[in-house]
Amino acid sequence: MDRTKILLGENELPRQWYNVLADLPFPPAPYLHPVTFEPITPQDLAPLFPQELIKQEVSQDRFVDIPDELLDIYSLWRPTPLYRARRWERALGTPARIYYKWEGVSPPGSHKPNTAVAQAYYNKKEGINRLSTETGAGQWGSALAFACNIFNMECKVYMVNVSYRQKPYRRILMETWGATVVPSPSKDTNYGRALLAENPDASGSLGIAISEAVEDAAQRDDTKYSLGSVLNHVLMHQTVVGLEAKRQLEMAGDYPDVLVGCVGGGSNFGGFFLPFVPDKLSGKAESLRIVCVEPEACPTLTGGLYAFDWGDTAKTGPIARMHTLGHGFVPPPIHAGGLRYHGMAPIICALYDRGLVEAIALAQTKVFEAAVSFARAEGFVVAPETAHAVKAVMDEALSCKESGEAKVIAFNSSGHGHFDLGAYESFLSNELEDYRYPTEQIRASLEELPRIDQ
Amino acid sequence: MDRTKILLGENELPRQWYNVLADLPFPPAPYLHPVTFEPITPQDLAPLFPQELIKQEVSQDRFVDIPDELLDIYSLWRPTPLYRARRWERALGTPARIYYKWEGVSPPGSHKPNTAVAQAYYNKKEGINRLSTETGAGQWGSALAFACNIFNMECKVYMVNVSYRQKPYRRILMETWGATVVPSPSKDTNYGRALLAENPDASGSLGIAISEAVEDAAQRDDTKYSLGSVLNHVLMHQTVVGLEAKRQLEMAGDYPDVLVGCVGGGSNFGGFFLPFVPDKLSGKAESLRIVCVEPEACPTLTGGLYAFDWGDTAKTGPIARMHTLGHGFVPPPIHAGGLRYHGMAPIICALYDRGLVEAIALAQTKVFEAAVSFARAEGFVVAPETAHAVKAVMDEALSCKESGEAKVIAFNSSGHGHFDLGAYESFLSNELEDYRYPTEQIRASLEELPRIDQ
Repeated sequence: MDRTKILLGENELPRQWYNVLADLPFPPAPYLHPVTFEPITPQDLAPLFPQELIKQEVSQDRFVDIPDELLDIYSLWRPTPLYRARRWERALGTPARIYYKWEGVSPPGSHKPNTAVAQAYYNKKEGINRLSTETGAGQWGSALAFACNIFNMECKVYMVNVSYRQKPYRRILMETWGATVVPSPSKDTNYGRALLAENPDASGSLGIAISEAVEDAAQRDDTKYSLGSVLNHVLMHQTVVGLEAKRQLEMAGDYPDVLVGCVGGGSNFGGFFLPFVPDKLSGKAESLRIVCVEPEACPTLTGGLYAFDWGDTAKTGPIARMHTLGHGFVPPPIHAGGLRYHGMAPIICALYDRGLVEAIALAQTKVFEAAVSFARAEGFVVAPETAHAVKAVMDEALSCKESGEAKVIAFNSSGHGHFDLGAYESFLSNELEDYRYPTEQIRASLEELPRIDQ
Repeated sequence: MDRTKILLGENELPRQWYNVLADLPFPPAPYLHPVTFEPITPQDLAPLFPQELIKQEVSQDRFVDIPDELLDIYSLWRPTPLYRARRWERALGTPARIYYKWEGVSPPGSHKPNTAVAQAYYNKKEGINRLSTETGAGQWGSALAFACNIFNMECKVYMVNVSYRQKPYRRILMETWGATVVPSPSKDTNYGRALLAENPDASGSLGIAISEAVEDAAQRDDTKYSLGSVLNHVLMHQTVVGLEAKRQLEMAGDYPDVLVGCVGGGSNFGGFFLPFVPDKLSGKAESLRIVCVEPEACPTLTGGLYAFDWGDTAKTGPIARMHTLGHGFVPPPIHAGGLRYHGMAPIICALYDRGLVEAIALAQTKVFEAAVSFARAEGFVVAPETAHAVKAVMDEALSCKESGEAKVIAFNSSGHGHFDLGAYESFLSNELEDYRYPTEQIRASLEELPRIDQ
């Protein structure tokens, strides 16, 4: 019997997160204040984040202990399985060995709770009882709803309007866990009301939803803000995924030639590949390729600038140096709502800038075609975001078929697509739309970057 | 750190199914021919089932080997975790220790593929390339679609119309795996056309959908029929669940006082509790209670007769001695579509008849209330069918709170509710309907039982 699933025992759950900042010879630029453009201080961040997360954001410790209470919660779904995609390999006729980490087993169905429960935990510990956040497709929002429910906290989710309409089941999931969900732009913030006055049917964007959630937190003493991606501490929490995967690949007797993941803000793939970065930096795995996959409709790495920009559309959150399409960029309404963000994790941008990671951009029809091929071979129906990674892996495996190379390809299957079946239906009935590469819109929104010496 | 998840290793997957027929001192009555009322012969069954499954249906072997090829497929999702519901225990304030087996991790999201892949495998081995079946909520249909896709077989699913409309995502899931799905009654069979002529909006029932799938298979040489519950071999395939659970409870150092499960046709709960039956029969666990939970809207055990009846509405399939509400009974359209069956597994009926298992019937509003309590404590959002077990466990745990007894309660959490969130939304917005106990309809349909000496 060939081994298709590599499992870790309950006691092999990582007890520390890995912090790549300890190893990066080229640290990301500091965050800047959204108004003064000065380096941001912990005091500036205090209305939005609890002290412990502000500390983690700039920590230089290589490993950070995971509190026992969090390990206990992680153990609801972690360690997650690593699969060898034998059936899919056979279906593709590739000599490549394909592995995927399966994060879809968590209650919210993705990798997102890895950081959501940590963020809720640290907030609760500092006496906070309400969190506000944004969500695109709803994976992050449902993870935070799940986490807040565990710690008896209120949760207010601003959900990008296009996803709110496309994915009602994710909203209901959040409500089942007790969260309050509104479509963004919403009537609940000044910024949302201003946008609705201009366009009552605005499809929204992650940048706008972030602005609303930040405004909510800034204006209420009982509330802090929670971000599901981009920030250093978020990527660090997600390294449990990569730490497990690295050990599981070892158990399978393999080391990857190529790591693949989809990137919206960068947290799922960051959490997956960062634990491999020291090997690459030290020369132990110099030839390891790390491939970020983004949608053509929102090509942050492949089509944006590496520049200082606001993380949100209203320019109320911190400024980061990152690849950006401009904080005002509103991507076309592709189904991968989680990839519709104008910016990217500064850590990933720094690595991309130095050529340590690659990036490609894909159109959604081909992405769903690959996801159906994967579902028919492996059984699992993945989220539209994850499907981007699946398509890139498929292309990689097919080029191995051409070349005869037996490469080891590993990807993070970051979430299931159970709430995205409307998108699969569109694909299966040939009604899925691809969007023109948004060259003009990007050019226009890049003109609005802050005037900071880049 | 308290242990919340009890895992088996990849190599601890059971290699044999358990066949309770070897141990039952009171075998279920033989199946009868639908027209002659004579005991049915293997030849009678040959148009519907492959030889190996006909053999398994009457096998007296205590253990039946699981072929390696099936173990390989099982390993995609098996062994499944057993959870100790510590958070829920705390939320309920009960001294009871609650365990649940979690079958929601399979690609179709329930226990159903445990038998679906076995049935597809044996059919394929005998040269069959197309299967027809019925489905209620779609859990069985999606499991068979998944299984047929693995073995490169065609799959035609007759989906009860009310569920077809309520649960579009399950249909899309089946289509993603390549199956053809039609609402039942359908235009694709003589029986379906006749019913549609009477009532074009018929909400359908499992009994009707079975008749259509049986007609489909009987009329085509390339097709056999596949049933997702009721039959002996189906329950036997599901015993992988109970065999694993028994070992996991042992690892946790506990033996159950009460086993709980929902019953539609009886396969999920049968698969869970049958491996414990020898302990009860031998006196080793005489006080073990086994509680079947059914919906008030379709109270087969608590409101039906123990009698010979047809398994399907058109009276074309075999007759079984079982608890039945009458083959013509059409249950109200509750969300737990998988529990809307007029009959029950003969094995479970025989045990119920001898007082070895108990049964209770519940109304759906209270059932969803319990499911939300479970989701908020444990994270997992269960299917409406599973929610029936959850409610019964909750009541049991609360009576332990009254009495102070630290009972060990275990249940099979047979599937996730990701495709049933419309039902959760109805509950959360107070729009869920309970149905009057269908006394009159049951009385009427019981008048149509076959005239066989009961």
